[in-house]
Amino acid sequence: MSTPTQVKIYDTTLRDGTQGEGINFSVTDKLLIAQKLDQFGVDYIEGGFPGSNPRDITFFQEAQKLKLKHARLAAFGSTRRANTKADADPQLRMLLDSGMPVMTIVGKTWTLHVTEILNTTLEENLAMIGDSVAYLTAQGREVIYDAEHFFDGYKVNPDYALSTLATALKNGASNITLCDTNGGTLAHDFEKIVARVVGEFGPDKVGIHTHNDSGLAVALSLAGVSAGARLVQGTVNGYGERTGNANLVTILPSLFLKMGCTAHCAPRLEELRELSLYFDELANLPPDTKTPYVGASAFAHKGGLHANAAQKVKSSYEHIDPSLVGNRTRILVSDMAGRTSIATKARELGYEFDEKSPTIADLIKQLKTREFEGYEYEAADASLKLLIAKNLGHYKPAFELEAYRVIIERRHDELVSEATVKIKVNGQTYLTVSEANGPVAALDRALRDALEPVYPQIKTVTLADYKVRILDSQQHAAARTRVLIETNDDHGNIWGTVGVSDNIIDASWEALRDSVEYKLLQG
Amino acid sequence: MSTPTQVKIYDTTLRDGTQGEGINFSVTDKLLIAQKLDQFGVDYIEGGFPGSNPRDITFFQEAQKLKLKHARLAAFGSTRRANTKADADPQLRMLLDSGMPVMTIVGKTWTLHVTEILNTTLEENLAMIGDSVAYLTAQGREVIYDAEHFFDGYKVNPDYALSTLATALKNGASNITLCDTNGGTLAHDFEKIVARVVGEFGPDKVGIHTHNDSGLAVALSLAGVSAGARLVQGTVNGYGERTGNANLVTILPSLFLKMGCTAHCAPRLEELRELSLYFDELANLPPDTKTPYVGASAFAHKGGLHANAAQKVKSSYEHIDPSLVGNRTRILVSDMAGRTSIATKARELGYEFDEKSPTIADLIKQLKTREFEGYEYEAADASLKLLIAKNLGHYKPAFELEAYRVIIERRHDELVSEATVKIKVNGQTYLTVSEANGPVAALDRALRDALEPVYPQIKTVTLADYKVRILDSQQHAAARTRVLIETNDDHGNIWGTVGVSDNIIDASWEALRDSVEYKLLQG
Repeated sequence: MSTPTQVKIYDTTLRDGTQGEGINFSVTDKLLIAQKLDQFGVDYIEGGFPGSNPRDITFFQEAQKLKLKHARLAAFGSTRRANTKADADPQLRMLLDSGMPVMTIVGKTWTLHVTEILNTTLEENLAMIGDSVAYLTAQGREVIYDAEHFFDGYKVNPDYALSTLATALKNGASNITLCDTNGGTLAHDFEKIVARVVGEFGPDKVGIHTHNDSGLAVALSLAGVSAGARLVQGTVNGYGERTGNANLVTILPSLFLKMGCTAHCAPRLEELRELSLYFDELANLPPDTKTPYVGASAFAHKGGLHANAAQKVKSSYEHIDPSLVGNRTRILVSDMAGRTSIATKARELGYEFDEKSPTIADLIKQLKTREFEGYEYEAADASLKLLIAKNLGHYKPAFELEAYRVIIERRHDELVSEATVKIKVNGQTYLTVSEANGPVAALDRALRDALEPVYPQIKTVTLADYKVRILDSQQHAAARTRVLIETNDDHGNIWGTVGVSDNIIDASWEALRDSVEYKLLQG
Repeated sequence: MSTPTQVKIYDTTLRDGTQGEGINFSVTDKLLIAQKLDQFGVDYIEGGFPGSNPRDITFFQEAQKLKLKHARLAAFGSTRRANTKADADPQLRMLLDSGMPVMTIVGKTWTLHVTEILNTTLEENLAMIGDSVAYLTAQGREVIYDAEHFFDGYKVNPDYALSTLATALKNGASNITLCDTNGGTLAHDFEKIVARVVGEFGPDKVGIHTHNDSGLAVALSLAGVSAGARLVQGTVNGYGERTGNANLVTILPSLFLKMGCTAHCAPRLEELRELSLYFDELANLPPDTKTPYVGASAFAHKGGLHANAAQKVKSSYEHIDPSLVGNRTRILVSDMAGRTSIATKARELGYEFDEKSPTIADLIKQLKTREFEGYEYEAADASLKLLIAKNLGHYKPAFELEAYRVIIERRHDELVSEATVKIKVNGQTYLTVSEANGPVAALDRALRDALEPVYPQIKTVTLADYKVRILDSQQHAAARTRVLIETNDDHGNIWGTVGVSDNIIDASWEALRDSVEYKLLQG
């Protein structure tokens, strides 16, 4: 038996992924994502491009406080400008200021780009690569070198392409990642070129970064590893500009379940489906049910022929056991949460738990009904935990709602949102009123004002994010609305809650209510 | 120079494609699709599975009347049942009754399936293949043999797997197509096995049929051709069960533009994007903007870096010329409204228009500001046209808003949404109140009630769709909200409007107001 190939996973969802149309993450989203990726198990998390995006600078400031168990955070930038000194380059300065342990810098391989886009000489480009890598490594950072357009550049001038890599390595880069920037390379060419680079510099130094313009990003990533590359860059769900980056969610199961690779970050493949759904939820994108391995349809059997056969000889129509990636076989229509996942959540809450009890069967039934109604718990953990706590009899309501009223009124240019909340706590009534920019913010404020006298810990709680999705939107304005709310407190806790209703304000109320109830449940 | 590889294209959208979740075509759809595929240029069109689907029997009756210029129509079925005679097999009879020139029959390769699912012997399985092929060819039909689970079967018992193919060929099959039925095979294994089969039986006889379960359907199809296969089965847009079949829309440009292949059906690649959109339209699916080659985002450049560079050296960031597949470059900087597109809209409204006038420059400035604020006009044509009409002085307000008020009130289980609208038309005030399921529906109704006495044409107008998106959602619940509304009337007109505000109700009001103003502008 040969030693298994050990591969490093480099996630660039927060940088290259956000180049995709419609992909926008807030700073809070980005922090949540970094934590999620670390928990899942990746080696590197590229957090942003401080030189091009002020929001990323804020992210890196906050990210320095994150306690990650395994992943190393990387900031992305490019080599110094032509004819300057590295230590005088404002963009490299911003990279260092990010405070991240890893700096990934991109440089030119393709001679056409050096002369036509950078307007400089081939020698100066090499100096730009060498100086930038040397300067950052001298400051104690790990430097990964991304060779832009490597494959196109190699085809035009292989010697020059290789010399850019040699320069990066000689100056201290820990890794040279070969980027198929246009996504135009086919598998045979790709594999041949990677093998050549690996032959030149050794496998441990070589990474790959592919795009899906020819529908081959996943295939090229696997081919790259076959050819000896040991670091794979990609994004969750293949987010990225044009047709997207290599989808790690598709690549990882093939590497680890089929090609016998290992990773020392030990990715929790059995949470892969949840990871994928979580990202779509934060990106506010409908999950693609056809995604390999993790999509809702990936192990769904419709054809009568196959469905029967799949019952008979399960492995016949399933290329892997779906539970290995957190997915499952579907013969009929949807139903979620098995006993095991409920049990896991209950234990997270610290509850004793009998998996066989009829309460659990009842809870599963409730969850199925709720999912049918439009509830979704992937990004609303706190609502799910509350439901479990209530069903297991561990929840005593912190307050009782008597009434709320929201008034939105416009008179010519004047626009007012006012909310009234009337609640009862221990027999005592609290009636508050508040104004804000919008109806949900007003309701949120009035609820807090009512609760604070009894529960001062509510003061530290802030509404961090608010998302709305209209379900079955063809049914006019009264269509079902799902609201997701993210809340945080000053202990660094973040939790998500969900509300569903025909009425957008009442859906928001439900998610707000869960949000404070969850905080109060924690004590 | 070597002779170009000539590949046959076999489309199974109408058979295997319809196994996909949510893919349903009527008989008329199927006839339209067959014509479209023939015009585009494919060699074979697999129209259905008469043995499993009565609708397909009707389709084949109608399809016999189609005058196709190039493609051959195929009906799909399976080998005869065990221990019967081919001429007594009802399913083979149905195949012949389809009247099609080509019969594609699927048979077992994998010994596990022969013994566990068919419950028969390996010898009888060979007889089933041989008899069935011989019987159909004797009736003057071309027979293509689909070897189910070929790759899994080959790995278990290569000799038996090859003997099934030899049997099909010996009995007159024109082609043996190797199916990766589970979609679980990786590229290296796939290519090696195809090469072995090609070595055994010659390239002109070998086809491939792949599924996307490992995200590799396209890569395997290209690898199959590299290994010598000369017939490629797939579906338009990758429709198909689970994660879908091999997507011909992605495969064909790589074969014909990058690998130097030819096809004697001469597919019109420059119509590829239109073909893809046409199928999504008939399947009633939103087009995937990220589809390689043909997606709306496939040649869209967002990042400042790339967008600038793409202007400089176009080929740098585009792997092919997008016009070769009927697509185009899009630069996504907030620059939507060029003068030309404004001019087009104005002319649609029937306005005289001087492209050089300062009003236009002013309008473009306004549009840029609005886009920055979160407005989007791609799906809100009517709002854009209203803005143009107002700027060109062609718009006289149909009414003046004095006030609206929306109240959402919950008292225990009772939930009420009430809206009041006060408008002025020609000096006269109209004050109305209405209740509904949700605040937007209530507001919509109150506005209509106020307008109907003056503008009876409003009666026929219905709110058809309502979408909400929270922009910059990290800024708490008062974040900016964009509402898109689609409205229709009983003349079959549909129009979209947009509203943006910190206040979700006021954003909805703005889109509602534009929606009725646009109707009234039409008279």
